[in-house]
Formats: sequence, structure tokens, C-alpha cells
Amino acid sequence: MRKGLLIVLSGPSGVGKGTVCSVLRQKMPELVYSVSATTRSPRQGETEGLNYFFKSKDQFQDMIARDALLEYAQYVDNYYGTPRDFVEKTISEGKDIILEIEVQGALKVKEKFPEGVFIFLLPPSLDELKQRITGRGTETQAVIDHRLTVAREEMSLLRYYDYAVINDEIDAACHRIQSIVTAEHCRRERFLADYAELQAVIEKA
Amino acid sequence: MRKGLLIVLSGPSGVGKGTVCSVLRQKMPELVYSVSATTRSPRQGETEGLNYFFKSKDQFQDMIARDALLEYAQYVDNYYGTPRDFVEKTISEGKDIILEIEVQGALKVKEKFPEGVFIFLLPPSLDELKQRITGRGTETQAVIDHRLTVAREEMSLLRYYDYAVINDEIDAACHRIQSIVTAEHCRRERFLADYAELQAVIEKA
Repeated sequence: MRKGLLIVLSGPSGVGKGTVCSVLRQKMPELVYSVSATTRSPRQGETEGLNYFFKSKDQFQDMIARDALLEYAQYVDNYYGTPRDFVEKTISEGKDIILEIEVQGALKVKEKFPEGVFIFLLPPSLDELKQRITGRGTETQAVIDHRLTVAREEMSLLRYYDYAVINDEIDAACHRIQSIVTAEHCRRERFLADYAELQAVIEKA
Repeated sequence: MRKGLLIVLSGPSGVGKGTVCSVLRQKMPELVYSVSATTRSPRQGETEGLNYFFKSKDQFQDMIARDALLEYAQYVDNYYGTPRDFVEKTISEGKDIILEIEVQGALKVKEKFPEGVFIFLLPPSLDELKQRITGRGTETQAVIDHRLTVAREEMSLLRYYDYAVINDEIDAACHRIQSIVTAEHCRRERFLADYAELQAVIEKA
């Protein structure tokens, strides 16, 4: 039985991860989207298991203690995290699952799930990257220095990823991601793991 | 400047490499097809540099001596081989080049060109593979044993390849190969090699 893939889509803040992900959702309806756990209260119209898994603080801390989260972070007073069992259940059913997450969280996922496919979304061009760093030329040196530090840190994390996808045009970026998913299913190691029967034939033939 | 890829398409004899390649030629007109060198005489309508590079035996042996071939083999009285300079010129121009070749030749190419993308084309199903081995049930045990040996040898070479593509349906197989080419251009190592400027920004930022 072919296993699904965990696809982790990350990249510097502001690069357009969310937009790419929502277009991908239309182009790849077969892809499952990872649902986060959170301790914040449900908002109007939010559904348990669809938008979030809503947890009490105790429940969430218990999940942390049980290593039941691939990653988690605290924003303001609330916890947010990626439940491991939802990811594992999905891929064991042979479905691919995508996780859209910021760069630090993605690296935590990689520690627990190194067999995932880690995609780093990049800004459209070097010029655009430089512009984001230097701004409109009206920023103080301190602001530019801070942005340089952030950009250096974010971009240097690219080395931990499997793929770099330039977000020059949404459809092109989505096409590259779709290609990566198709290609990863064809990678020899994954293929042989999925087709244990074939491997047996090869060895015993 | 982005470098092209050397894509090597191989697989067991009879799996349909030639058919897949000719459909791919229509679907990916931007792909360059490797032209072989040969010592056999040109047939009617064959053009130098398009169908083959036609060489004398002396010229061919000189190419062998100069290590100017990625692989070569002798069939009947003639040599056939893959000129290295045509491959290298094409990829240095940023164009992808595909080489359709039998499994042993592909492994020789891999020795000289490990950065190539090696794709192993597989028969549509395990049943089909078993059928090819056991035949229609009318074969002698000696014939079946021979086929078992050949199949074991051919299939065991899969472990040297980067990708396994099942040739269940020509269009599906071509789509997988197209996806592999797109994905390989996004692989982090290749991407960083192609975008040295970006790497400089990351390091110096």
C-alpha cells in the first residue's frame, strides 16, 4: 500500500505561503490540509476538526508531554500546534497531507518527521528580496540592519529544505509544488518502500 | 545562469522506453535529445548531427581513448556511444537533455556523470512482470530460469536510479517524467548552484 507524503510548505514571512496554499487547495483537492490544535476559543463559524482541534490548556499541555505534537508555539496567551496523529493517520491511509508553517516550526517538524518533503517558498526575485531588506530608502540604518539579520536568518534556513520554489507567479509556483509531489512519489526509496511486493520479487526472482 | 539537466531514461528491455521518449519529444519540445555517435554507415535520409554523429572506426577509437564518450557499446561490427561534449555543451547552455539508453549503458553514464537524473521505467504491473517471466506457461523451465535471471539482474539495477516510473499508460508516464524534470530544477542543491548570486546574498547579508 502506497503511503502518503507529508509536504511541509514554509518560507520567509510575507512570501505568500497562505495564498499559494489556498490556490493549491483548488488545484489539488485530493491533498489533505493539516489541522492545527489550539487553546484559543472557537470563533463564529469555526468547526472542530475542520478549522482547528480546540483544546483546553490542560489538554494541550498533556499533548506536549505525550509528544503528540510535531511542533507547537505560543502566541500571546494561546498555544498552537500540529497534532502528530492526524498527520500519521492521513499518510497511513495513502493520502498526501500539506502543512503550511513558518520556518522555525518547519524545522521542528523535520526533527520529528525527517521523511517529510520540505519546500521553501522564495520571493519572486533577488531585487524583490533586496527591496524587502532595504525598504524604500527612508528607513534608518537600525531598521535595515534588523531586516538584514532577519533575512539572513530566514534565508540561511533554506539549506535544511529539500526544495526551493520561487513564488514569481502563483500558478507557476503551484505547478512546481504539484510536480514535486508527483516526483517524490516516484523517488526510488519511496517507491520501493511502497512496493514491498516488487522488492520481494526483485530479491527472490 | 541556470544549468540544464542530463536526464537518463532507462529500464528493462521491452518496457517501452522508445515510445515514451517519442511522446515526450512532443510534450516537451524544449528538451534536447542526445545524439549518439556510431561507426555504421548513414542510411537513406539520416542526417549527421541529427540522427547520429557518423564516425570512422579510427575516429571512434580515438574518442574512446580521449574519454570523449559517456558510454559506448559494440553491436555486431559497429560501435555506438554517447559523446560527452554534446551533453556538456547542451547543459552549459541551460537546456535539459535526455538520453534513452539500456540499463548497463545508463550505469556507465552514471559513473562519469553522477549529477544526472536517472529514471528507471517499469512495466505496468507486477502481474505484467511475472507474465514476462513465466510466459504463457508453455515455456520450458530452462527458458523461465533464464528470464528469471535477466529480470532479477535488470530489476536489481533499480537501486542505482533516482526515480522509478511505472509505464502503465504513456501519458501518465510522460507526466511523471515531466514532473521529475520540474522538481529536479527546484531541488535545493541544484537551485543554490544555479543561483550563486542568491547564495552570496544569504552569506553576506
